[in-house]
Amino acid sequence: MHNALRNYINKYSSTTISDDDFEQIKNAFVLKRFKKGQYLLQEGDVCKYFAFIVKGSARQYSVDTKGVEHILHLGIENWWVGDRESLNMLTPSKYNIDVLEDSEILLITVEDMQRLTDTLPVIGKMINTMNQRNVIASQKRIHDALSLTAEERFIELMKNQPDFLERFPQIMLASYLGITPETFSRIRKKVLK
Amino acid sequence: MHNALRNYINKYSSTTISDDDFEQIKNAFVLKRFKKGQYLLQEGDVCKYFAFIVKGSARQYSVDTKGVEHILHLGIENWWVGDRESLNMLTPSKYNIDVLEDSEILLITVEDMQRLTDTLPVIGKMINTMNQRNVIASQKRIHDALSLTAEERFIELMKNQPDFLERFPQIMLASYLGITPETFSRIRKKVLK
Repeated sequence: MHNALRNYINKYSSTTISDDDFEQIKNAFVLKRFKKGQYLLQEGDVCKYFAFIVKGSARQYSVDTKGVEHILHLGIENWWVGDRESLNMLTPSKYNIDVLEDSEILLITVEDMQRLTDTLPVIGKMINTMNQRNVIASQKRIHDALSLTAEERFIELMKNQPDFLERFPQIMLASYLGITPETFSRIRKKVLK
Repeated sequence: MHNALRNYINKYSSTTISDDDFEQIKNAFVLKRFKKGQYLLQEGDVCKYFAFIVKGSARQYSVDTKGVEHILHLGIENWWVGDRESLNMLTPSKYNIDVLEDSEILLITVEDMQRLTDTLPVIGKMINTMNQRNVIASQKRIHDALSLTAEERFIELMKNQPDFLERFPQIMLASYLGITPETFSRIRKKVLK
């Protein structure tokens, strides 16, 4: 159960973590099982947890004034979810996070994560790597959203996250790419032909 | 000249840096004057420098197959510019960075930045804060690009970067928001009325 987290920390800190250190980390996390559709975070609440997906998947989305959902993030096994703005600034979140299948998720509070970062260099290293990757991925996502056509965005998704196409319904992928479900369906047919 | 950088480091590391430490930092940077329109980075080159703007402004943009420019970032005094993906992965950049006015910029190589991070905790702290802010700002920018109307994006820009409206030509702001110059001009008139 915690093995996925241990492998993740080793990989993203480029370190082999000791049993003692991992025991300390493990104790800071709580494992929780979520039923499909259950919320980790609801709009207006302050996000309390960084969440590491052991099994299952989740999405972070906003709902606009017309009731339309906009998916900002999709996450699967070995991904983190959590509204970073709300977590770090302690502000009410503009987002909802719910799970898309029955899921097993490791939760840690922002205070416990800070405590681990202060005491274990391996966690500081992991977070630096995560942030760096996040900055790079976000730069690409902003660029794609602002400057690629819908078809080019679909092709980028196929290239970079082929598992998403297997795993998530088309209506969610369309929202994730910022295009209508009809356009998504048309492009998908055309590109896959 | 280096005072802006010193103030920035103090602010983003929540520390008051010592004269000795700052001397070491100062020596790692090179001050360069750029004429309006001069490039810091050209597409296809590997980005070599983190650049701290002391005076002036810069933009990071791509050019698509039709020759249209897409502005990913605009930067003014006390902002950093640099293609993070190219800097960290040592890959050829998809972007150009040029200055929009005669500018004074402090340059540091990625190796020197790493050396400072390894030896001076204050630089590690500063980079953590910068990354965290970058992650939060990027999340907001992705959300806005995918789910806000052109008018809502303009209003967000007015709220969050009022100085951009004074400082940059409309055609660049339109590109930065991912809308056409005509739409930008129409919305601007409507909103400012």
